[in-house]
Amino acid sequence: MKWYIAAFLLTVLTSSEGILTTLSQSNGKYKYDYATVPFLAEVFKLIISSVFLWRECKKLPPLKMTTDWKTVRLFPIPSVIYLIHNNVQFATLMYLDTSTYQIMGNLKIVTTGILFRLFLKKKLSNLQWMAIILLAVGTTMSQVKGCGEASCDSLFSAPIQGYMLGILSACLSALAGVYTEFLMKQNNDSLYWQNVQLYTFGAILNMARLVVDDFRAGYEKGPWWQRLFNGYSITTWMVVLNLGSTGLLVSWLMKYADNIVKVYSTSMAMLLTMVLSVFLFSFKPTLQLFLGIIICMMSLHMYFAPPSMLVGLPPTVRSDPDSLVIVSDDHKAES
Amino acid sequence: MKWYIAAFLLTVLTSSEGILTTLSQSNGKYKYDYATVPFLAEVFKLIISSVFLWRECKKLPPLKMTTDWKTVRLFPIPSVIYLIHNNVQFATLMYLDTSTYQIMGNLKIVTTGILFRLFLKKKLSNLQWMAIILLAVGTTMSQVKGCGEASCDSLFSAPIQGYMLGILSACLSALAGVYTEFLMKQNNDSLYWQNVQLYTFGAILNMARLVVDDFRAGYEKGPWWQRLFNGYSITTWMVVLNLGSTGLLVSWLMKYADNIVKVYSTSMAMLLTMVLSVFLFSFKPTLQLFLGIIICMMSLHMYFAPPSMLVGLPPTVRSDPDSLVIVSDDHKAES
Repeated sequence: MKWYIAAFLLTVLTSSEGILTTLSQSNGKYKYDYATVPFLAEVFKLIISSVFLWRECKKLPPLKMTTDWKTVRLFPIPSVIYLIHNNVQFATLMYLDTSTYQIMGNLKIVTTGILFRLFLKKKLSNLQWMAIILLAVGTTMSQVKGCGEASCDSLFSAPIQGYMLGILSACLSALAGVYTEFLMKQNNDSLYWQNVQLYTFGAILNMARLVVDDFRAGYEKGPWWQRLFNGYSITTWMVVLNLGSTGLLVSWLMKYADNIVKVYSTSMAMLLTMVLSVFLFSFKPTLQLFLGIIICMMSLHMYFAPPSMLVGLPPTVRSDPDSLVIVSDDHKAES
Repeated sequence: MKWYIAAFLLTVLTSSEGILTTLSQSNGKYKYDYATVPFLAEVFKLIISSVFLWRECKKLPPLKMTTDWKTVRLFPIPSVIYLIHNNVQFATLMYLDTSTYQIMGNLKIVTTGILFRLFLKKKLSNLQWMAIILLAVGTTMSQVKGCGEASCDSLFSAPIQGYMLGILSACLSALAGVYTEFLMKQNNDSLYWQNVQLYTFGAILNMARLVVDDFRAGYEKGPWWQRLFNGYSITTWMVVLNLGSTGLLVSWLMKYADNIVKVYSTSMAMLLTMVLSVFLFSFKPTLQLFLGIIICMMSLHMYFAPPSMLVGLPPTVRSDPDSLVIVSDDHKAES
């Protein structure tokens, strides 16, 4: 599979995730316990990866599987980071209103770029950095609700703790992504084996979360396993399958592509969801959405198009050993 | 003078133009007839250019001055285009509300790029085209007021004639700029001589406009020359001097730089005015303004930075005769 096909699939699936989740509600409320969905998605991913691993294990040459503790112990870390991230998100929402929170979420595009550079030592050109910032600006723009008298004052007037937590949240989100990429690329182990480790710990930590939530709520709604399939509709199952599939695709991209590709996929998905919402939920399109889409498309082109395509048009190209000086010779029109 | 110094000066002067005009009002109203200002500015430019021409004429080598009718007859055309443009603007405002009108005004950035390419045969790289579109998107974004319940519906729900006229207006504005550039660069005539011709016709056409306006209004407020300095304060004179100086700078830029430089200067001026208004007129800054500024700054960098700086970071640069292929060799981090 080519990376851009995986990226495209991820965009479509992530986009339908938002729409399916909305469709799975009845009258704007969940009839099922949404907290059980990520757990089931982890189990789904674990089953799929195990089946593939089992099938591939019988073939020759044998799959590369590192099983020493020194490597295995690295695999719970992404789940732990996500767990911390969830709690930070929860704390952030105590200080920030939802629109400021949503807008600050776009910071993770920039923090991913920074951690990608710092931890994975990937170099980005000046233009690629600009593309990343533009992507963040474009997604933010598409979400700007504008200034009704009330909302304008509340935007960016929250306590400083809220912004600090928002930044921390963006860093943790980026760290989880960058760390997973490091994990998947650290050795040539089979993707299936890496996935099995990742999702085993994922399932365990998601289960632990359900247990802790039950404990905190004083078993009001009964233990989690009783709520597991309670009120599940066909759409709920589609949400589970969708979440599981996007997880598998992300895992694939982390091994064979990188975090920036993932960030582009999910950002495009966000825009696609908004466009689809215009048709499906008669969501009102804004000029901001339109401008945001233009910006993100240009960012995509700037990041992935070959540099020669971007700067190569002027007819005379003189190339120095140190720098490329591009001289245009079309002043003929002037004389 | 370097072109970027002229461009910077134009930005500062254009920006203070808006602020001076606001300051010249008392209680939100003009105490003088604003229509007389452009006429006086033309006269000011004509005087300055004549003085310079006269001084330079005495020097050796003699200035190059083409005086045959075939060349001179081209000089009223910019003023005529501006006159038509003014009338189209007036018609546009009958169909569009002021915010839609203001937002459509940014189209002239893109139309200038297109006419610059078509009429002056200047080639722009892929990246420069993207920079121009980004500039238009950035300036538009900074002006988005957002969706109060009322304003959101009215945006882009005007009659189609309004949009057609808005597009026509953007084309005429671009045409005037591009034509002036052609005029200034068509031969090696002295800038002063070209200016004298330009502003003589400019002053005549502005005067004609005042006469026609008087006629239309049935001489209600008396003939224009009686209103000429009526109610003028020191700030009004500063507005005249400012408008005249920006005109002279634009003329200089048309001869020694180009339309795109001018478009960047005036767009940056618009943003600068908005930022200064935050401090001077306690204008409320919006997230849109902030995002718009980021985008315009990146657009500026993309358009004017040397391509080597933009794409040249990856360590290995192989240059082909036909295309530049830039190969990054920093996948070491992955292994």
